[in-house]
Amino acid sequence: MFESAELGHKIDKATFSRKAPALREALLDAQYEAVEKKAFPIILLVGGVDGAGKGETVNLLNEWMDPRHIQTHAMGMPSEEQRERPPMWRFWRELPPKGKLGIFFGSWYTEPIVARVYARTKRAAFDESLEQTLRFERMLVDEGALIVKLWLHLSKAAQKKRFETLESDPNTAWRVTKNDWKNVKRYDAFRSISERALRQTSTAEAPWIIVEGADARYRTLTVGNVLLKAIRERLDRDAAEPAASRAAAPKAGREALVVSPRVDKLDILRSLDLTKKIAKPKYEKELLALQARLNQLSRHPGGGKHGVALVFEGNDAAGKGGAIRRITGALDARTYHIIPIAAPTEEERAQPYLWRFWRHVPRRGRFAIFDRSWYGRVLVERVEGFARPDDWMRAYTEINDFEAQLAADGTIVVKFWLAVSQEEQLRRFKEREKTGFKRFKITDEDWRNRKKWGDYEVAVCDMIDRTSTEEAPWTLVPANDKYYARVMALRTVCDRLEKAL
Amino acid sequence: MFESAELGHKIDKATFSRKAPALREALLDAQYEAVEKKAFPIILLVGGVDGAGKGETVNLLNEWMDPRHIQTHAMGMPSEEQRERPPMWRFWRELPPKGKLGIFFGSWYTEPIVARVYARTKRAAFDESLEQTLRFERMLVDEGALIVKLWLHLSKAAQKKRFETLESDPNTAWRVTKNDWKNVKRYDAFRSISERALRQTSTAEAPWIIVEGADARYRTLTVGNVLLKAIRERLDRDAAEPAASRAAAPKAGREALVVSPRVDKLDILRSLDLTKKIAKPKYEKELLALQARLNQLSRHPGGGKHGVALVFEGNDAAGKGGAIRRITGALDARTYHIIPIAAPTEEERAQPYLWRFWRHVPRRGRFAIFDRSWYGRVLVERVEGFARPDDWMRAYTEINDFEAQLAADGTIVVKFWLAVSQEEQLRRFKEREKTGFKRFKITDEDWRNRKKWGDYEVAVCDMIDRTSTEEAPWTLVPANDKYYARVMALRTVCDRLEKAL
Repeated sequence: MFESAELGHKIDKATFSRKAPALREALLDAQYEAVEKKAFPIILLVGGVDGAGKGETVNLLNEWMDPRHIQTHAMGMPSEEQRERPPMWRFWRELPPKGKLGIFFGSWYTEPIVARVYARTKRAAFDESLEQTLRFERMLVDEGALIVKLWLHLSKAAQKKRFETLESDPNTAWRVTKNDWKNVKRYDAFRSISERALRQTSTAEAPWIIVEGADARYRTLTVGNVLLKAIRERLDRDAAEPAASRAAAPKAGREALVVSPRVDKLDILRSLDLTKKIAKPKYEKELLALQARLNQLSRHPGGGKHGVALVFEGNDAAGKGGAIRRITGALDARTYHIIPIAAPTEEERAQPYLWRFWRHVPRRGRFAIFDRSWYGRVLVERVEGFARPDDWMRAYTEINDFEAQLAADGTIVVKFWLAVSQEEQLRRFKEREKTGFKRFKITDEDWRNRKKWGDYEVAVCDMIDRTSTEEAPWTLVPANDKYYARVMALRTVCDRLEKAL
Repeated sequence: MFESAELGHKIDKATFSRKAPALREALLDAQYEAVEKKAFPIILLVGGVDGAGKGETVNLLNEWMDPRHIQTHAMGMPSEEQRERPPMWRFWRELPPKGKLGIFFGSWYTEPIVARVYARTKRAAFDESLEQTLRFERMLVDEGALIVKLWLHLSKAAQKKRFETLESDPNTAWRVTKNDWKNVKRYDAFRSISERALRQTSTAEAPWIIVEGADARYRTLTVGNVLLKAIRERLDRDAAEPAASRAAAPKAGREALVVSPRVDKLDILRSLDLTKKIAKPKYEKELLALQARLNQLSRHPGGGKHGVALVFEGNDAAGKGGAIRRITGALDARTYHIIPIAAPTEEERAQPYLWRFWRHVPRRGRFAIFDRSWYGRVLVERVEGFARPDDWMRAYTEINDFEAQLAADGTIVVKFWLAVSQEEQLRRFKEREKTGFKRFKITDEDWRNRKKWGDYEVAVCDMIDRTSTEEAPWTLVPANDKYYARVMALRTVCDRLEKAL
């Protein structure tokens, strides 16, 4: 794969001086157009061989383009704080919003490749990390990002020569580290492993572009042209076919909302026994016992290895808030954080939809309690047509990947669906309208949602079927009786913690 | 994931009798429409728990629909002949052409799941096989196939009950085998491993549909409706937006043909030294020695483990045929097969584009010599606009996957690009036109291709950069001198065989 990048490409000074100004202007134009339109996030990965000019390339782009709209991330080894979250967390946090250019100098490829070169991981684990990367990048592309992947290459001889030249000049000798020479010895392994990585992750949407790094002028012109072509073509494509028309949900009759047609009335929600209840005295006793148990568990020394993510979904007025308060009542306020999920903010809308949840991934030893969650994508967004069928269909996979990453990192994921009957919901709506301090809790939207009861039922059943996994199973809670629901939620949390600790 | 398929779904006889006839007719209508339009291949996977009615379902579809347009494949363990090729070979061979329904009763999922249940493979290898499957299915979808994946499920208790019922009746007792009872004991492992497989491979384009298998009438109606919905929606979509308009290549100026813009004139083809030559006496001596060496290698006892695939690509009139004849001259005619690749046949056009090459994958101990090859996709199809940029871009990955599967199975893949200069080609064209017995070798198309020399050059360089891999590297052969080219090709084949044996 590196053949063409070992030919000794060179651009003479005169040619460079002739071509550079126009390229620079065109790049700047493209950048401003992307910024003004808040068009799409531009993600530029700069990887490659040490000494091939990665740093110079990044510096130059910052010089040529408007650095106010560029975020450069030199991602080294993860920090203490970063280590307390899943490995991809730090990359999610740094994704550029629409219109901005995010340069990742050292990307999600660096660690897997280095670990493999130094034989700290096996081939199978390496391949698995590449597959994860593929899925991550596909998600970014599906969410509208433009990804440009540059690999700056030097032949073995050219690398050696480059370091020797730098060392021989006292002004640049500092740029060559001991580590660089150590890596030179691993050149062949690095080349072979990089080749595998590049091959496996070069896709039609986000191909790797390999650039010979030896000659600075050649490298600069090539990188500039690659980036310009990618941004320009995407801007032109979007202008010809506005994102709005692509994103518009097709006029969805009930038909289009169905993954699999149904032939009877039985489903997992209807098979729930909603008559389950607990008498008040028993409830009060159990509540106290369970809260004591949860408090003890939350102070368990093994808890330091685990974050806990509690997800509360359910019908409107099913009592999510009440159940959450019975749980937080047992916890030290410094250890938990409640995240109420409403419509996304402007900042959040400029990012892939899972971004706003990655922001709140709990550190080890902490609880993150989601009052509604990422499942909005396959519930309200699906039913209301805010997301296209393609988008919510792929969301099942993306959500499973997300939760699998949390679980693999030790996070305990507990998911609740609180179910009430249509009649009980109506009773609670009316009660809320009558009771002054509860009136803010009932809106027109609640009444509108109620009319789509059947559609939501289908969406909830599909959600449970497609995202209830061994690592992150759903717990369905009959919630017509609030006491019963609260006790069941508390007990489930305790059981899951106990099992994990 | 199986929650909804353990609820005890049931359809009573009256309902079934009312609904079945209309469903049957609609299915037949959809089938005939697909057949008449030669619309798209329909691939139906039927997997699931033993005893959940997989066989009955397949029989019923053959009864309800026109069996002349259905190919049912009960894929058990691979046969002797199949074992001599890569594992996916047997599935490629059985893919249905456009308009036909191919039912895979036991699919590419069966072996990985069973091997994992019986702990013959590790988790990492299992996951890798799922990823391969994902890529395979994505390729099929990109190539236009409709994939419907059914999983028939039974709870543990229901499975046991089903087998007991069958056994208690002398008429059906034969249907329960010892193996079935053996598998029952592994139910929990099977369920957990299947869940993982289904979750990882459920995509927006080809989601798994899980169907409770206990009640025959419920199962039948559901399967029928799922299949009908999938075919119908796709037919309607294609009618609204004809495949022709989707497949049409955008009016490609030279710009659109470029993966990465170039800033100088140097490339891997131009850096070849085409002046290399060998004098005739030396050529004759070396030819004999190399042919003797190749003959010996071809009779090496270790050769029984390896198939050999030789790929010859090159400029028109570069001497591919001559080089091939010097190789076959050293081989036993029973051991090789030359596959000249021209435009695809009608049968081949009804299949994914790699299908016609999978047909010719060599058995162990045999040579398959491709005179032109699957690389047509990224050469002529790219340059002439027969394939859209999306299609030839993804072809690099698909080709790498294909060759990696060959290599993993022990096949030695040797790829040649025979390069001549523009002047030398002109000389040969003119010579051919003058020489009577060579005149058939030169066509108008050759002259047309010549005009696109620059486009082909770009395509060849991209091809080499993106598909030259450790397992299957490209060898670039300077072919202005035929003697030099033939000797180099022969020697390369010998070296590769020697290294592998």
